[in-house]
Amino acid sequence: MAEPAQIAIDLTDRILTITLDRPAAMNAFTAQMMQEMVAAFDRADMDDEVRAVIVTGSGDRAFCAGADLSGGSATFDYAKRGNDFGHASSPLRPDGSVDYDHPGVRDGGGMLSLRIFQSKKPVIGAINGAAVGIGATMTLPMDFRLAADGARFGFVFARRGIVPEAASSWFLPRLVGISTALDWCYSGRLVSAVEAQQAGLVRSVHAPGDLLNAARDLAQQLTAQSAPVSVALTRQMMWRMMGAASPIDAHRLDSRLVWSRGSSADAKEGVASFLEKRVADYPDKVSSDLPHFSPWLDELEW
Amino acid sequence: MAEPAQIAIDLTDRILTITLDRPAAMNAFTAQMMQEMVAAFDRADMDDEVRAVIVTGSGDRAFCAGADLSGGSATFDYAKRGNDFGHASSPLRPDGSVDYDHPGVRDGGGMLSLRIFQSKKPVIGAINGAAVGIGATMTLPMDFRLAADGARFGFVFARRGIVPEAASSWFLPRLVGISTALDWCYSGRLVSAVEAQQAGLVRSVHAPGDLLNAARDLAQQLTAQSAPVSVALTRQMMWRMMGAASPIDAHRLDSRLVWSRGSSADAKEGVASFLEKRVADYPDKVSSDLPHFSPWLDELEW
Amino acid sequence: MAEPAQIAIDLTDRILTITLDRPAAMNAFTAQMMQEMVAAFDRADMDDEVRAVIVTGSGDRAFCAGADLSGGSATFDYAKRGNDFGHASSPLRPDGSVDYDHPGVRDGGGMLSLRIFQSKKPVIGAINGAAVGIGATMTLPMDFRLAADGARFGFVFARRGIVPEAASSWFLPRLVGISTALDWCYSGRLVSAVEAQQAGLVRSVHAPGDLLNAARDLAQQLTAQSAPVSVALTRQMMWRMMGAASPIDAHRLDSRLVWSRGSSADAKEGVASFLEKRVADYPDKVSSDLPHFSPWLDELEW
Repeated sequence: MAEPAQIAIDLTDRILTITLDRPAAMNAFTAQMMQEMVAAFDRADMDDEVRAVIVTGSGDRAFCAGADLSGGSATFDYAKRGNDFGHASSPLRPDGSVDYDHPGVRDGGGMLSLRIFQSKKPVIGAINGAAVGIGATMTLPMDFRLAADGARFGFVFARRGIVPEAASSWFLPRLVGISTALDWCYSGRLVSAVEAQQAGLVRSVHAPGDLLNAARDLAQQLTAQSAPVSVALTRQMMWRMMGAASPIDAHRLDSRLVWSRGSSADAKEGVASFLEKRVADYPDKVSSDLPHFSPWLDELEW
Repeated sequence: MAEPAQIAIDLTDRILTITLDRPAAMNAFTAQMMQEMVAAFDRADMDDEVRAVIVTGSGDRAFCAGADLSGGSATFDYAKRGNDFGHASSPLRPDGSVDYDHPGVRDGGGMLSLRIFQSKKPVIGAINGAAVGIGATMTLPMDFRLAADGARFGFVFARRGIVPEAASSWFLPRLVGISTALDWCYSGRLVSAVEAQQAGLVRSVHAPGDLLNAARDLAQQLTAQSAPVSVALTRQMMWRMMGAASPIDAHRLDSRLVWSRGSSADAKEGVASFLEKRVADYPDKVSSDLPHFSPWLDELEW
Repeated sequence: MAEPAQIAIDLTDRILTITLDRPAAMNAFTAQMMQEMVAAFDRADMDDEVRAVIVTGSGDRAFCAGADLSGGSATFDYAKRGNDFGHASSPLRPDGSVDYDHPGVRDGGGMLSLRIFQSKKPVIGAINGAAVGIGATMTLPMDFRLAADGARFGFVFARRGIVPEAASSWFLPRLVGISTALDWCYSGRLVSAVEAQQAGLVRSVHAPGDLLNAARDLAQQLTAQSAPVSVALTRQMMWRMMGAASPIDAHRLDSRLVWSRGSSADAKEGVASFLEKRVADYPDKVSSDLPHFSPWLDELEW
């Protein structure tokens, strides 16, 4: 994997911290940043030394100011800019019109959101400043959002003449309710960290200097005493079943999972350590011991 | 369109206000009122002068007291009353029994709820008094409910020997959670504006004389700086994706939408006005410039 | 029906109280207890004298401490223990491996959860003490949870090397939101009654001596003035439509239901008693008068 240029990566105390790292541009989002973030989440999933992921921004002004607008008024004209993510053919027809059914017609923000959705490790957003456009929507598939007291969220799409992206129409009403989601997306106004906390989007608000430590403490609390394979499966079970039609779907899945994990070395250690009142040492690994059932090994097929 | 008789319509400051207007009958709901409201929402969608819709009731006692009970104990006996909404054939078999699979077996309250659900303009309920039965359930597909301090909500169906209608079993648990929805619908008790606000059903509570102004202020705040086409698409994306199984459904939709709207005149104006720090003047119109993708052009097929 | 041994059953004032009754074992869950509870819910549905169900635990330490760990580290090794619920064939292959697609691979906790989900009577959990593992997850398909002030909830699965079961991945994010659900299930920490109330899992917290009376008062308030058939249908409509893709699904169902119940004797009595300002006496019975439409007569097919 090439060294990333628009993000920074740090692995300390089993936490992988991804820092959006274009501070002069308020960490504005680019196609390259998207691809570097996807690669970082791939690494987090494969590396058993990583127990949790934190995503934050460089500097104290912005988490991510949204799409880089240096292209001016053609910024969102993806067809002209050739944002087809390298498909062999182009969505552009010879007459210049777009074939919207072409697989190259794809939202880069959504590709990142879905990659975070599929993470096998807990994901914490440490929102250090303005989170605008894709900077706001990319945080929605994270498990928790902690915010600096000066952070702002801006679902500004309707003020730019475009629409909410990154699959945010699925995530946002589930996180804050349909009325709040519509308020924020109709108006495009900036939402303070405190309002976001009251609405349920943000877990806790911190002085800027305390934000990363609070995120690290949370990551430790979530994972310290838990089996990594159980945590990975729990993440996929909960997020995937949020959209399922019936609890029978969950029963079909978790029946096979409790049988499979119930006979695992982790389960024997989990029960034995509990009965012996000692700290558990779980032998199984996310990289090799995930059972081969849906949905956590299913890709979200395009 | 014939002049409506059971509702009043006013268009001021780009807000279409629909007033349920049978004050002597506490604005009780009738089949005619339903059809007049559907026509009013049709007009709101087609008229680019309409940026938002407010629904309120005439007088200070009731928003809508529910189904008109002047028919007495046969009020809900739809078969006898021929409430088949004009189908060529009748759901009644020669022996007098009902064919429940007949397309004329249809709940009029639900026809209104689904029409509101499909609105292309933001919808605000200004609940000026008692909202009972269909008077309560018709407000659920509205984006926001503001209430006078004396307003009451009554999901009274179980006290009338019938069941929650107007698709409220889909809406209510998503708005207030399953436990509160069951409490209100099992007991059929009247719920105060303050309790409804604490439960998340009502956004804000007002003195009766301030209610309509508060609704108008909200409508302005939601739409003043936003592109009308973006607002219309946002409304349909959020409401439709609330029930979708997976974020990949949203990604499939919004990928095409961001490409389509990204090359629009609205997007060019949105970015240019932002970079030039000036008020935007969006050229596109809801009546003519909605892209032809699902779901917002899909009817909900019966 | 054989007399149950691991639960106690009481019918007083039209409320069926089910008490998990293994106090010496902190009411730990067994396959036998599951089957006795399923039978008790079957009885509640069939017996028109039962208007609501309360589930509580014996003693003041535990509601249910989870799976009985007396089997030691093999507790969750369902294949070895033959937990295939009596299927004619076994999920075990001749070589000792498990066929995870075999219908005997089934989670007993989920069988109980789905049975509660399908209840035709309101269900109130009176959580008198520790609710851990299946002791916590079995409460999720109940309509309401009231808790003693010393009660604790423990979604401890990741600390035992297993995964959340009993279809809790469908229920828990819908009850408390995805972030709280993941916090509790990643960490496996014990959650106090007050924290559970703040998160929306618990309706109210009581001194231990007041808990059962509060549950009984709630049961009376919910059912006193309501038609039993309406209550049964309301329960199934709301829970089933929580997962439905679109409000049109609810409209398809409730259209037939309002026509069917609208011509019932209950509806005539409901309207007449309201107009005459007297207490209603609903003639229809859950045991015989439920209409034969989906979904409440549909079993959740395995």
